[in-house]
Amino acid sequence: MLKIRTTQLGEHIGERVRLSGWLHQLRALGKIDFVILRDGYGVAQAVTQDANVIAPLHGLQNETVIAIEGTVIAEAQAPGGVELRDIALNVVTAVTETIPLSINKPFVEASLDSFLDHAPIGWRHPRRRALIRLSSAIMAALREFLNGEGFTEIQSPKLVASATESGANVFAVDYFGKKAYLAQSPQFYKQMMVGVFERVFEIGPVFRAEPHDTTRHVNEYVSMDVELGFIENHFTVMALLTRLIRQILVRLSERNATELTLLDVKMPTAPETFPHIHFRDAQQLIFEMHGEDCRGEPDLAPQHERWLGAWARETHDSDFLFVTGYPMSKRPFYTHPDPANPGFSNSFDLLFRGTELVTGGQRLHLYADYIAALARAKLSTEPFEYYLEAMKFGMPPHGGFAIGLERFVMQLCGLSNLREATLFPRDQKRLAP
Amino acid sequence: MLKIRTTQLGEHIGERVRLSGWLHQLRALGKIDFVILRDGYGVAQAVTQDANVIAPLHGLQNETVIAIEGTVIAEAQAPGGVELRDIALNVVTAVTETIPLSINKPFVEASLDSFLDHAPIGWRHPRRRALIRLSSAIMAALREFLNGEGFTEIQSPKLVASATESGANVFAVDYFGKKAYLAQSPQFYKQMMVGVFERVFEIGPVFRAEPHDTTRHVNEYVSMDVELGFIENHFTVMALLTRLIRQILVRLSERNATELTLLDVKMPTAPETFPHIHFRDAQQLIFEMHGEDCRGEPDLAPQHERWLGAWARETHDSDFLFVTGYPMSKRPFYTHPDPANPGFSNSFDLLFRGTELVTGGQRLHLYADYIAALARAKLSTEPFEYYLEAMKFGMPPHGGFAIGLERFVMQLCGLSNLREATLFPRDQKRLAP
Repeated sequence: MLKIRTTQLGEHIGERVRLSGWLHQLRALGKIDFVILRDGYGVAQAVTQDANVIAPLHGLQNETVIAIEGTVIAEAQAPGGVELRDIALNVVTAVTETIPLSINKPFVEASLDSFLDHAPIGWRHPRRRALIRLSSAIMAALREFLNGEGFTEIQSPKLVASATESGANVFAVDYFGKKAYLAQSPQFYKQMMVGVFERVFEIGPVFRAEPHDTTRHVNEYVSMDVELGFIENHFTVMALLTRLIRQILVRLSERNATELTLLDVKMPTAPETFPHIHFRDAQQLIFEMHGEDCRGEPDLAPQHERWLGAWARETHDSDFLFVTGYPMSKRPFYTHPDPANPGFSNSFDLLFRGTELVTGGQRLHLYADYIAALARAKLSTEPFEYYLEAMKFGMPPHGGFAIGLERFVMQLCGLSNLREATLFPRDQKRLAP
Repeated sequence: MLKIRTTQLGEHIGERVRLSGWLHQLRALGKIDFVILRDGYGVAQAVTQDANVIAPLHGLQNETVIAIEGTVIAEAQAPGGVELRDIALNVVTAVTETIPLSINKPFVEASLDSFLDHAPIGWRHPRRRALIRLSSAIMAALREFLNGEGFTEIQSPKLVASATESGANVFAVDYFGKKAYLAQSPQFYKQMMVGVFERVFEIGPVFRAEPHDTTRHVNEYVSMDVELGFIENHFTVMALLTRLIRQILVRLSERNATELTLLDVKMPTAPETFPHIHFRDAQQLIFEMHGEDCRGEPDLAPQHERWLGAWARETHDSDFLFVTGYPMSKRPFYTHPDPANPGFSNSFDLLFRGTELVTGGQRLHLYADYIAALARAKLSTEPFEYYLEAMKFGMPPHGGFAIGLERFVMQLCGLSNLREATLFPRDQKRLAP
């Protein structure tokens, strides 16, 4: 007997097949019974008019693991247009308690907190697991694009000796009696590896000990980090990023129609060239359009980003907008200044539907510039000894960016909280499951 | 002017092209000068008889970042059979100090410690960076195979609330005034996600606070974790793993000939079915072949594994050997016992050239079995609350395995120390770079 997935039923009409999965729903109507089976890929309906067939389910609850054999019949009324008839059913793993979350309703009928408390089973809900499938598909599409562009994937260490990048907001680890820290980003490692491979990327966890409590932040998330050498300036980086984002969206449309439909995702408009606006011009625009005078402030507030996102949508028909040239004062020490305008930087944020999705830019590449930048930032060179060695021995002009994976899914699917797109979120209140 | 990679020169014979990269070596012979340029992909030779051409390199050292324009000429004597002539050279980033490691000798002429101290530049050595390229290729081939088999890639949290799996050898983290721990493995998360997706995998860092100082262990490494539901027993898992390993080796041969040749890799013999031997029979075999009586001991020593590896090689013409049925006493509490022989387990190690590469097996899947196993192990159920919830609400028979990425590269390439295959190793002595 051929064991297949629920999503393969349509290819086997008229055949006897075997499905296995979870009892998603049982509708026992007396004369006719419908068994809805969910496997790791979808759901399927099996129908019987023989009460003995479903007798093994007596006293058992939804989520009981079952196997069903049956004949595949085209049936327009059934989900997916096919159903199993003439069935035999057996129980693999019995469930005798009622599940504390609704898995088989169109929506999860629980608060976010309650969902997170029961996430190990909550993710079984078809709408919820579609979010993780999209995460997986985004990672796959990113790798596919970057491998095609000559990038090498690396895995850099997460335990580091010093709280280097910003000096604050890092988690401390007891490391054989010494103090270690959890890496806030693979920034220094990916830059060093540009000296080896020219083009590198990494997908992995990053750790931020920031005590914020917002819908857009958690303390551990998945960062997709990219870095490339031999660039002209940050516009080279932005051009690659634009092609990458467009490719990811194309691949999702091609491969994940099921998830995108289930989640009612409106695919973003991503023109061949994303509009870009300089930081100063963005502040001027906000002043002119909304009367709020943020000119001269060193950063944009979330409301400013939303206004800019709406403007890009309306005037450029784009869900993506680059804001370039952030003030040097708000960017890390390795940021390359704008040669024509040194108070500003060769950096960018990419806003996606009015929320920052990507941060990137050109980095310094000359050893002497690093020494000067560290001095200006009043940082000792000692914790940067290894990083500086790479800079001393020949680095090309380079730059890169980091995309937050969960942020991408959140904005794509219009979620109201980043935690909905995070497998097992970590924040000040939550370290489990 | 077309900028190309060194590895693309052969496709452009007769054309003017531009290369950029690092000054790998300069051989100034007076009448004729050879400039060896290394980019992120390979090396290429440029030749000139005009001393003015290389004047910009005067006073500069190897690793200076340069760009060379020239005409591509077929030349049998040159590396790769092509070279650049009629060249123009300019300096992108000057290097004025001598590099502390030899990058352009056939081998790195430094002790392992010295290499690790200078790893940010040491990885530029062609033989060394080939190891990281192979790591990257192994990850890519694993993902390709598993995606084709219906697996979903996940990213589970590395910060966890309790030191759950073994209760020992975990790193503690100061988490907003509470204590958190670094995950020793994604074991519990991947099992929970079998209840969602049936088949999942993850590639990510794992952290082991074991104070060992061996050539085969570091304290942070990359684990490739796989878990699948609806198995018969551990032999289902072993069959998938066998196909996976064979596919990885095929892909490496197809795509990484350059690296395999550079590293003199002898590709392993991986028969369609890997031989397997039960733990007890393995001990008996060791006794009979080598006179060492380890029968009744609960585990195998490294020497035992080497003997078994040699035996598999000689009698089965295989570089891979499954040892099955390890005693339950040496396996974690979630291990499924052998129903016919409950002191032993439905688990396995896969030895690759006589060293453990993979550990795996069938897991318990019934809630009642978990409660009993935790009681036997004298573990409280409380830290396992979320894990147990997944088990309570219907888990199919399942199992999986974990492959150490660096271990794979070490054994494949015949390295004498795992640190040679680790980007920036972490051990008791080393937390940087």
